Amino acid sequence: MKKIINGVDSLLAESLNGFAKAHQDIVSLNSSPYFVTRKQPKDKANKVALISGGGSGHEPLHTGLVGKGMLDAACPGQIFTSPTPDQMMAAAQATENGAGVLFIVKNYAGDVMNFEIAAEMIDCEHATVLVSDDVSLPKDHSTGRRGVAGTLIVEKIVGAAAQAGKSLLECKTLGDRVNDATASMGVALTSCTVPALGSPTFDIGDNEIEMGVGIHGERGREPMDLVSASKIVEQLAQTIDEDLKPQQGQKVLLHINGLGATPLMELYLIYDLAAQFWSDRGVEVVRSLVGNYTTSLDMTGASITLTLLDDEMMTLWDAPVHTANLRWGC
Amino acid sequence: MKKIINGVDSLLAESLNGFAKAHQDIVSLNSSPYFVTRKQPKDKANKVALISGGGSGHEPLHTGLVGKGMLDAACPGQIFTSPTPDQMMAAAQATENGAGVLFIVKNYAGDVMNFEIAAEMIDCEHATVLVSDDVSLPKDHSTGRRGVAGTLIVEKIVGAAAQAGKSLLECKTLGDRVNDATASMGVALTSCTVPALGSPTFDIGDNEIEMGVGIHGERGREPMDLVSASKIVEQLAQTIDEDLKPQQGQKVLLHINGLGATPLMELYLIYDLAAQFWSDRGVEVVRSLVGNYTTSLDMTGASITLTLLDDEMMTLWDAPVHTANLRWGC
Repeated sequence: MKKIINGVDSLLAESLNGFAKAHQDIVSLNSSPYFVTRKQPKDKANKVALISGGGSGHEPLHTGLVGKGMLDAACPGQIFTSPTPDQMMAAAQATENGAGVLFIVKNYAGDVMNFEIAAEMIDCEHATVLVSDDVSLPKDHSTGRRGVAGTLIVEKIVGAAAQAGKSLLECKTLGDRVNDATASMGVALTSCTVPALGSPTFDIGDNEIEMGVGIHGERGREPMDLVSASKIVEQLAQTIDEDLKPQQGQKVLLHINGLGATPLMELYLIYDLAAQFWSDRGVEVVRSLVGNYTTSLDMTGASITLTLLDDEMMTLWDAPVHTANLRWGC
Repeated sequence: MKKIINGVDSLLAESLNGFAKAHQDIVSLNSSPYFVTRKQPKDKANKVALISGGGSGHEPLHTGLVGKGMLDAACPGQIFTSPTPDQMMAAAQATENGAGVLFIVKNYAGDVMNFEIAAEMIDCEHATVLVSDDVSLPKDHSTGRRGVAGTLIVEKIVGAAAQAGKSLLECKTLGDRVNDATASMGVALTSCTVPALGSPTFDIGDNEIEMGVGIHGERGREPMDLVSASKIVEQLAQTIDEDLKPQQGQKVLLHINGLGATPLMELYLIYDLAAQFWSDRGVEVVRSLVGNYTTSLDMTGASITLTLLDDEMMTLWDAPVHTANLRWGC
């Protein structure tokens, strides 16, 4: 295992310290238990507190998305391990100011369970948006679909709504609506290596790719031969298209997400092909995001996310945001 | 070789198309010859045109840094191959509007030669800032020191000066001053793989790292055993410190740059250690940038860049910038 670390046990702490130092104008780090909160004033006295979290190793998700117009707090677990309920409770106590707490949770058993325990124990109004955008699994999958790169879209749009003073119920309803309008699917060329394990999470042949991979290295739909970018994008986009069924003239947000180790050149090439795929079907790509946002440590690969936008969502997407890793209008 | 591409020959074109589509609010792409220009209005009628370029494979450098407050144009060559003089001449013709052209060039033989040829052939006032921040080579190295991640710092600070209406001479003098005040050094854990070659640029043992590596996979000072992050950072920072000799109380910008395939968690850990290194020496880290900015395709590794700031540089660093990959205040 080749990593620039001091040790498996100290990695998260040292990394969070660096993150908090580098962005001390935007975030504060609480170390016991771990959570990151936004430093900027909230403008509105009564603002819904937006809290997310999950295992580490997906950076900049979620800590890099804490700040004005997006999350109020993020709770980082150990690598690929759910944060614990005490982290979410402490984050809720630190950020709630009368308008309630909205948890944004990726649909993984550990995250769901721990956020549920936290929700039961906090004594303020609260709700949860469960993100389940990964269409590599069928809709009726036993534990539901996984939450992947679409999580950022939910956090940005709901974040802008909360910033504008929308109520807890409005934010929760909007979050569910964005989740329903969002579909993602990824492909891996290599596995990631979790530091505590020290070896790749899964084996993959030199000429093989894993379609429908999850962001923790969960095996996908099927391993298949490495084919051209056009064929890979066609298959990912087709699956998303069949799920969301965008109509001609539908305005969409297209997000190409790198899984960590894929050069930007390839991500933009994927964007080009995916934009063409939907443009050929009369779908209007009106907003874009390309880069490494929901990563899987050092995994090589990428995912495509499509969100069907309405006017409200588009306005909220465009609203100012000021976080460590997503910033515009501020 | 595992890459999401359609073919070695079409990679650059498809990637640039995707980049231009995804950021059509910020940039325009010219295809024959290739160059990218900013779309936003210039505010000042007479603004120095800032042009950079170099081999592709370092994205977001330079195309992702075209826009308000930074570059007016970028000329992308093939992967790790200098752009040709006709690209620079066409970019100059497209962007020059009476205040002259400033070329910002990384110190590599091909880039230097081709920018020189272009400079000789354009018929407007022009100057060149040569970036040579890589302190892994001695100051008196036969071809001079290489230009690496410090290039972004030069482009941002001079970009803000040009945006504010400074003259060609002022921009050139400032650029040289920022270059002199900047030092970088990198480490690689793995080589990158250039698509046209299809195999890693250099061999490196499973337990070996390359200190002082260049951004094209040039071998560094010495291969050494993979040691702890603390030891790696200590050695990089020490070399930079001995070169720049910051005084106690000196204000600095600390930039941790990922070479492409290194997780953000590790880059923030490096930031933490490097910030501590200078803080222990009474040097004040007042500005920071952490992320993948000057990459080397899929290389695993990182570099540390330090810039000694004066008040003018700090103000210019903070000035609004609106590019695809660096954005604040806009």
